[in-house]
Amino acid sequence: MRKEKGIPEHLRKWQEHGKGLGGEVDQRVIDAMHPADAADHIEELGLEEQVKFIKQLPIRDAADSIAEMERYDQRELIERLNIGMSARILEYMSPDDAADILEELDDDLRESLLRQIKAEDREEISTLLTFDPDTAGGVMNTEVAILLEDLTVDQAITSIRAEVEDKSIPYYAYLVDRRNHLTGAVSLRDLLVARPGKKIKELIHNQHLISVTYEVDKEEVARLIGHYNFLAMPVTDFDHRLLGVVTVDDVIDILNEEASEDMQSMVGAGTDETIDSPWAYSVKKRLPWLVLNVANSAISAWVVHLFEGNIAKMAILAVLMPIVANQAGNTGQQALAVMIRQFATEKFDRVKSWTAVFRELKIGLVNGFCVALLVLFAVYMFTQNAPLAMVMSGALFLDMIIGAVVGGAIPIILKEFGRDPAQASSIFLTTITDSLGFFSLLGLAGIFLL
Amino acid sequence: MRKEKGIPEHLRKWQEHGKGLGGEVDQRVIDAMHPADAADHIEELGLEEQVKFIKQLPIRDAADSIAEMERYDQRELIERLNIGMSARILEYMSPDDAADILEELDDDLRESLLRQIKAEDREEISTLLTFDPDTAGGVMNTEVAILLEDLTVDQAITSIRAEVEDKSIPYYAYLVDRRNHLTGAVSLRDLLVARPGKKIKELIHNQHLISVTYEVDKEEVARLIGHYNFLAMPVTDFDHRLLGVVTVDDVIDILNEEASEDMQSMVGAGTDETIDSPWAYSVKKRLPWLVLNVANSAISAWVVHLFEGNIAKMAILAVLMPIVANQAGNTGQQALAVMIRQFATEKFDRVKSWTAVFRELKIGLVNGFCVALLVLFAVYMFTQNAPLAMVMSGALFLDMIIGAVVGGAIPIILKEFGRDPAQASSIFLTTITDSLGFFSLLGLAGIFLL
Repeated sequence: MRKEKGIPEHLRKWQEHGKGLGGEVDQRVIDAMHPADAADHIEELGLEEQVKFIKQLPIRDAADSIAEMERYDQRELIERLNIGMSARILEYMSPDDAADILEELDDDLRESLLRQIKAEDREEISTLLTFDPDTAGGVMNTEVAILLEDLTVDQAITSIRAEVEDKSIPYYAYLVDRRNHLTGAVSLRDLLVARPGKKIKELIHNQHLISVTYEVDKEEVARLIGHYNFLAMPVTDFDHRLLGVVTVDDVIDILNEEASEDMQSMVGAGTDETIDSPWAYSVKKRLPWLVLNVANSAISAWVVHLFEGNIAKMAILAVLMPIVANQAGNTGQQALAVMIRQFATEKFDRVKSWTAVFRELKIGLVNGFCVALLVLFAVYMFTQNAPLAMVMSGALFLDMIIGAVVGGAIPIILKEFGRDPAQASSIFLTTITDSLGFFSLLGLAGIFLL
Repeated sequence: MRKEKGIPEHLRKWQEHGKGLGGEVDQRVIDAMHPADAADHIEELGLEEQVKFIKQLPIRDAADSIAEMERYDQRELIERLNIGMSARILEYMSPDDAADILEELDDDLRESLLRQIKAEDREEISTLLTFDPDTAGGVMNTEVAILLEDLTVDQAITSIRAEVEDKSIPYYAYLVDRRNHLTGAVSLRDLLVARPGKKIKELIHNQHLISVTYEVDKEEVARLIGHYNFLAMPVTDFDHRLLGVVTVDDVIDILNEEASEDMQSMVGAGTDETIDSPWAYSVKKRLPWLVLNVANSAISAWVVHLFEGNIAKMAILAVLMPIVANQAGNTGQQALAVMIRQFATEKFDRVKSWTAVFRELKIGLVNGFCVALLVLFAVYMFTQNAPLAMVMSGALFLDMIIGAVVGGAIPIILKEFGRDPAQASSIFLTTITDSLGFFSLLGLAGIFLL
């Protein structure tokens, strides 16, 4: 197989093929596709075509492909298929994928589906549904290779061979004692290179076993897996009994979701919006924040209103206002962006975070000074009015420092109140930098110029 | 080991222990730490302490810990250690980690270090240094388990057992023909469950082998690994000869870097800034964009200047100006954020992207209409001036639609010009929404109110 520019050859083949058939689905081509590519393809079809297509597929292929689809498309499709078929498809998925889909459905449909799923799968899925979806328990996979620590290496290999078809990702096997307490982890390669008669317990001598309890936030689990370069993180209850594992492929999804959430919620867009979301959904998510923003900008407008008399006497102030607001807003957003990414990539550390605000203050002071100097010259050249140039650059300097400190502090404050550190932070920031910027410019002008 | 709230116990032990010793380093505690935690700890020390500490460590531990440190700290430390020791440390690292560090150094130091590294490692590292660091070649690991496709399963296992100590991440082994062309991939578990006498070639019958060439962008490789839920992606030359693999732990780093880059470059902060960067570095990265922003806001100020006469006659216009600018800016940023995340998580598709701008137009129309209606009432209640309220809400509606379309379009345009779709996008957006917002408000006021 040869490929260029990262397009897998079988996909390109499908694209060409698809064109030849006027874009119609060709079963033979789909058969040769990876489920992730098949999912992409299915998502491009209309709902009725999706249903028609899924019905033609063997149940296992249907399950594999649907598991790879976007949440929104999964939900629509499962709601539309007949309940018996949906239940069969869910049985063929790994329990965590099935639970993720059921989570999204209405209570009634979820209950009906669960009743149709065969008892052993139902029990496992129902247990997973009891965990908060944003925690380790909510994202973990229960298909895990478990070994009693008393086994020898060759017994362990035999046991894994017998089980392996059932477990989707057995890169590690986990050791437990007779009461199911997690005692260690071995990789398949550890087993492969060890002397067959050795007790597996000896392989984990001196191991730094790292695990999380089921209620740890999923973003924290993702951070830990990234930090330790793990392929999976074992999840236990508070008695340290093994419940499941969070795998690295889930981490990639969690990181992508988190990055989208942060960037989008910062400006008041929906955390889970994509360009594939229905546009009415985006309206619903964004409009409340825009309305809040009206209230917020009413505050800065009110500040300007206080000084309306000054503006009437000196309209040039209205010309300079946007410059102050823009610079301070931009300065604050720079601090905000660095801070939000800090919280996304490292564990929250109060002292370190507030030290970072002090760092932003220093950056704000230097950047503020340079920009204020530039603006001092520019305004003087333009207006030949030295006092005005000084008032303008003073207000700018002040507001840029405020922007730097407030931009650095907002995510910490939101975090301390238990909120998402990004949520609408840009909107709050702008309200403050606009209001205080206008206040200092128009206020200083009132004192020194009028 | 028991843990709560995701803090690994040995780390908490170290924290408590560290406090008891007045924060001094205790070798026994460090010995029991994971290299990733040791790296975090070392980063908190001053440079001289770092050097002193690293010198006490066995070379292998030093290499493992330094490999986990932040790029900036690695560079400082390697520059400060004596060249012989640095060379030994680099030899103990995996070649891709060593190449990443050397990449950051001055040419002279890099050359001197390479001369000190033993020939076999030098050759491998030098080859890696020839690849663009932003491509698959630049992030791949050359330590990969390679199997001739003619082997039987038991021969393959014997071969992996012999090699495995040297290879850091052999979850997959790759099959090549006699001319080193990549023909397939097998996982250790495939080998473990297969009949020993079977040819490994038979295991890959009908496999959809997916690989990338060395010049594929690293973010695209990350996207593909996430898409296919792979643990590693083989990298080949244009003749499909195997060069190395990109592993999933690199993907986590790439995704985190990309998310930080996007969020930070959007507002003109440095793409690689963190709260641990020296503050002067942040000044250097951010100031040029703030200066550009002065030029940009000068444009919107100039628009206001054109209408200075109108403002002198009707100062309330200056009160309303910030509301228009804010709303349209916010609307545009919502579109921007969703679009930038789209480019981060999916392959660029021109038609789909422009369709998404059309989607933003629809959202902008509805949100613009709702907000304009709200503002119409609010301004009328406040001023009792119906024509003013209508002019204001008309300008707002217009500017919000412009914001939606421009916010959606900027990342596509940047992408088409081969730029990072996020770069300074928020700054460009604000310039446009401010200028056109002021133009429509003050222009419409000039026509209908004065």
